[in-house]
Amino acid sequence: MTEEWLPTLKTDTPQEGYELAMKLARKAVGLTQPDPEIRKMLRPTYANNADSLTFASQVVAIHFQTVAAANNYWN
Amino acid sequence: MTEEWLPTLKTDTPQEGYELAMKLARKAVGLTQPDPEIRKMLRPTYANNADSLTFASQVVAIHFQTVAAANNYWN
Amino acid sequence: MTEEWLPTLKTDTPQEGYELAMKLARKAVGLTQPDPEIRKMLRPTYANNADSLTFASQVVAIHFQTVAAANNYWN
Amino acid sequence: MTEEWLPTLKTDTPQEGYELAMKLARKAVGLTQPDPEIRKMLRPTYANNADSLTFASQVVAIHFQTVAAANNYWN
Amino acid sequence: MTEEWLPTLKTDTPQEGYELAMKLARKAVGLTQPDPEIRKMLRPTYANNADSLTFASQVVAIHFQTVAAANNYWN
Amino acid sequence: MTEEWLPTLKTDTPQEGYELAMKLARKAVGLTQPDPEIRKMLRPTYANNADSLTFASQVVAIHFQTVAAANNYWN
Repeated sequence: MTEEWLPTLKTDTPQEGYELAMKLARKAVGLTQPDPEIRKMLRPTYANNADSLTFASQVVAIHFQTVAAANNYWN
Repeated sequence: MTEEWLPTLKTDTPQEGYELAMKLARKAVGLTQPDPEIRKMLRPTYANNADSLTFASQVVAIHFQTVAAANNYWN
Repeated sequence: MTEEWLPTLKTDTPQEGYELAMKLARKAVGLTQPDPEIRKMLRPTYANNADSLTFASQVVAIHFQTVAAANNYWN
Repeated sequence: MTEEWLPTLKTDTPQEGYELAMKLARKAVGLTQPDPEIRKMLRPTYANNADSLTFASQVVAIHFQTVAAANNYWN
Repeated sequence: MTEEWLPTLKTDTPQEGYELAMKLARKAVGLTQPDPEIRKMLRPTYANNADSLTFASQVVAIHFQTVAAANNYWN
Repeated sequence: MTEEWLPTLKTDTPQEGYELAMKLARKAVGLTQPDPEIRKMLRPTYANNADSLTFASQVVAIHFQTVAAANNYWN
């Protein structure tokens, strides 16, 4: 059985929406590379590389568009 | 005859929508490189590279925008 | 006279929409590099490179957003 | 005086819309590197590189989203 | 307790919306690499590299789409 | 005091909207690397590189989506 990790796109605040966007960005990485040891090993490489950090931030930005739209921009 | 693999963009939950987004992202790879042996050979290269994983995650993010809109954000 | 290759964005099914998105992604490549011999020569390079395949998949994802919206997500 | 090159985003057909998207993608290149000699010199580099062609195709895809929306997807 | 940094996507002007987009782009970097010393160390690398600057600008562009939509384009 | 540079996303024509998109793309570069001498130094690097020009064009494309939507596609 698959663990439930995304019951809804709704959040109470924009900030929680941003945190959900980060979770969504990381989830695909975890599903593509399920081994936590390898992910841990890769972490210093990208966390210490400016372009890798920008890249990670970009994926969050794309998901944040989705989450913000799902919450009607928290109007 | 082409196999049917995408009858609908509708899913019951956001999580199933995310899984569909992953499928959509992988499908174009399979259609561009149809040889499963070569894809298997390429897998370690990107599954062990931080930027390649972020890149894969980005394509999922773009498809997830589409799937989420198709499901009216599971409202 | 230019050949007609894109009479409509409407498709009967999501899957045909996905195939149209692939066609849209490839068309710009063909218009930028019209020589089929050179394109054939380039093919092994990207079809055997994980990031190139992800990149190609990303362009399909962007076009699929357009095609899906044009078909009102096949509602 | 600046030459008029973009009077409207409306086109008669999706295909003309795609051609407008290509024009929009190339225009920013021309405005950033106005020297036609240098652009001509750069052309073989990217026209013979698979990833550069995919990249160019991606910018067309983003503009095609805009043009398609402007034309209400040629409904 | 997490510090509140994103109470709303609403801004008074497009320019403040752009500044918020920059903040959103940088936030994911800060959350992925929380050590301010390392971020400071990385700064010269990307601030003196043309493509890294373009990349940073792209993430801002994606967030600006979200912020602009949230503000109904400041109509 | 911050200089006002973005009073509105409204423009009279699509072409002026495109010029605004270029301004929006460049602004983030200027805010990330405020030293005009360094930016001038970096200019030849990207203005003579095909992929850097495509990249710059892509950021313009993303902003043009926003500006076009803000102007209701100049309908």
